[in-house]
Amino acid sequence: MKRALVTGASGFIGSHLVEHLERAGWEVAVIAHTRSLQTNNDAAVRRVYQYTGHTSEVIVALDDFKPTAVFHLASLFLAAHTPDQIEPLINANVLFGTQLLEAMNKSGCTVLVNAGTGWQNYTPQPPFDAPDYMPVNLYAATKQAFEDILLYYVQVASLRAITLRLFDSYGPGDSRRKLLRLLLDTLRTGEPLDMSPGDQVIDLVHVDDICRAFLHAANLALELSEPAARVYAISGKQRMTLQQVAATLEDAAGRKLPLRFGQRPHRPREVMHPWEGPSLPGWEPQITLLEGLCNLILEEEASR
Amino acid sequence: MKRALVTGASGFIGSHLVEHLERAGWEVAVIAHTRSLQTNNDAAVRRVYQYTGHTSEVIVALDDFKPTAVFHLASLFLAAHTPDQIEPLINANVLFGTQLLEAMNKSGCTVLVNAGTGWQNYTPQPPFDAPDYMPVNLYAATKQAFEDILLYYVQVASLRAITLRLFDSYGPGDSRRKLLRLLLDTLRTGEPLDMSPGDQVIDLVHVDDICRAFLHAANLALELSEPAARVYAISGKQRMTLQQVAATLEDAAGRKLPLRFGQRPHRPREVMHPWEGPSLPGWEPQITLLEGLCNLILEEEASR
Repeated sequence: MKRALVTGASGFIGSHLVEHLERAGWEVAVIAHTRSLQTNNDAAVRRVYQYTGHTSEVIVALDDFKPTAVFHLASLFLAAHTPDQIEPLINANVLFGTQLLEAMNKSGCTVLVNAGTGWQNYTPQPPFDAPDYMPVNLYAATKQAFEDILLYYVQVASLRAITLRLFDSYGPGDSRRKLLRLLLDTLRTGEPLDMSPGDQVIDLVHVDDICRAFLHAANLALELSEPAARVYAISGKQRMTLQQVAATLEDAAGRKLPLRFGQRPHRPREVMHPWEGPSLPGWEPQITLLEGLCNLILEEEASR
Repeated sequence: MKRALVTGASGFIGSHLVEHLERAGWEVAVIAHTRSLQTNNDAAVRRVYQYTGHTSEVIVALDDFKPTAVFHLASLFLAAHTPDQIEPLINANVLFGTQLLEAMNKSGCTVLVNAGTGWQNYTPQPPFDAPDYMPVNLYAATKQAFEDILLYYVQVASLRAITLRLFDSYGPGDSRRKLLRLLLDTLRTGEPLDMSPGDQVIDLVHVDDICRAFLHAANLALELSEPAARVYAISGKQRMTLQQVAATLEDAAGRKLPLRFGQRPHRPREVMHPWEGPSLPGWEPQITLLEGLCNLILEEEASR
């Protein structure tokens, strides 16, 4: 039986991934801060390792659980940061991951699937041939910093590491205050919503497709015979502008949304065209945005 | 009058750099942990900002001193690390630097000269065409992590940043337990010293040449009209094998050293051929190894 150690299991993608792995027959353990576990009702049913900041805790967890693969999804996500968020950002996105790699090295676990972000590859201007690295924000820079450290451990611990750079995600049970949440709220309340011009291209990926990508990447890494640090872009079935996303939601809901495009400016360093990176071999997204949104609306209505 | 804020001022290169900058007419302030300042006798004569780990302390320092340029030399150097050193390594080499960049962004200081390491460009095998990044050790990986965070601030704060990737350094007042120290001790004691095969190429640079490079880089950055993140290799006048370095020391001392080459193995991931990176335009090293070693031996003898 394959054993998965998951970080970030209390997050939106992480909580879906844990269930996905278990359905696929993996034994799952999670390692997490006590404070994030308090909101995770499922924690009682699987093994939980507590992390309060110490490298030794992570080493003990890896030595005890002996995972087949580590799925590293834990991160502090901040679209913009304030000075007092620098320390938690470095701790969550660089320090914890490094401790995890050190523990993998000590315990002999060699397979890692890591969550990156398409924001590591900012392309402000056309033509949109992206550099290997250009961060949109400090969050993306800390993700790159972790990948730098990962390369060291790939060398010395012979890791097979696959980083999946993610874009926007959506799906059931999403409590994050992101744009789609605002649109769904607008659908319910009917209150007008001021929008940016809406010409930015969005890559919205259903969480089930993302979970399949993580599992597929782990199986791919397990078959690699040489140390590797691979990076793939996990894109949805179609990219569309924000205006087209809104129109697709209107199609799914069967009614118009009171959106006022152009009433707000783009945010600083708005991504107008997400990174076009290499796709994960053998995986492709299954769920169209229309299909995903229809299901989301049905679920929203059923839960009220 | 130009104003330099120096980090790492209590270290070997940092302490030389502070004096070099002052001789060149710069006003110098340092920011440092209280514990490193305790050993810095010169601290009383110049402005010292205390850092105990908080971003706000660094912001206050930059706002108060309003430096023309920041010279970032502070780092925790570890050729090899243990698990309990991961947190101090990330804090010293990633967190503190990020706090410094955040403070530069807030205060409007746009010129940074940063100390990197040639160990960010490991080339294990011939041909020695180095990749942009391949870390020798975790120390080098944290230096790269900082550079990737730096790229974010170069974008949003319009920094002119120059990273000088350093190799081995030597010069007066060097209390670091490095190879040259061992050789000088052997010269004094006459006790046989077991060595590696000694065929690895070494790039030993005199600290005065390094200080000139830092000052030159700052002046170069001050003239840049566009944001930049440049990287240069700061190499000495000649590269030679460790055996040739020992022979040069014998020439300087006028007697043979009781060295037993080949009695110890190379260390893991030994650098056999240091990175050959772009050189800093307008700067070149002045001091030959023979000249530098002669002066060092005279100084050692005078201080006994």
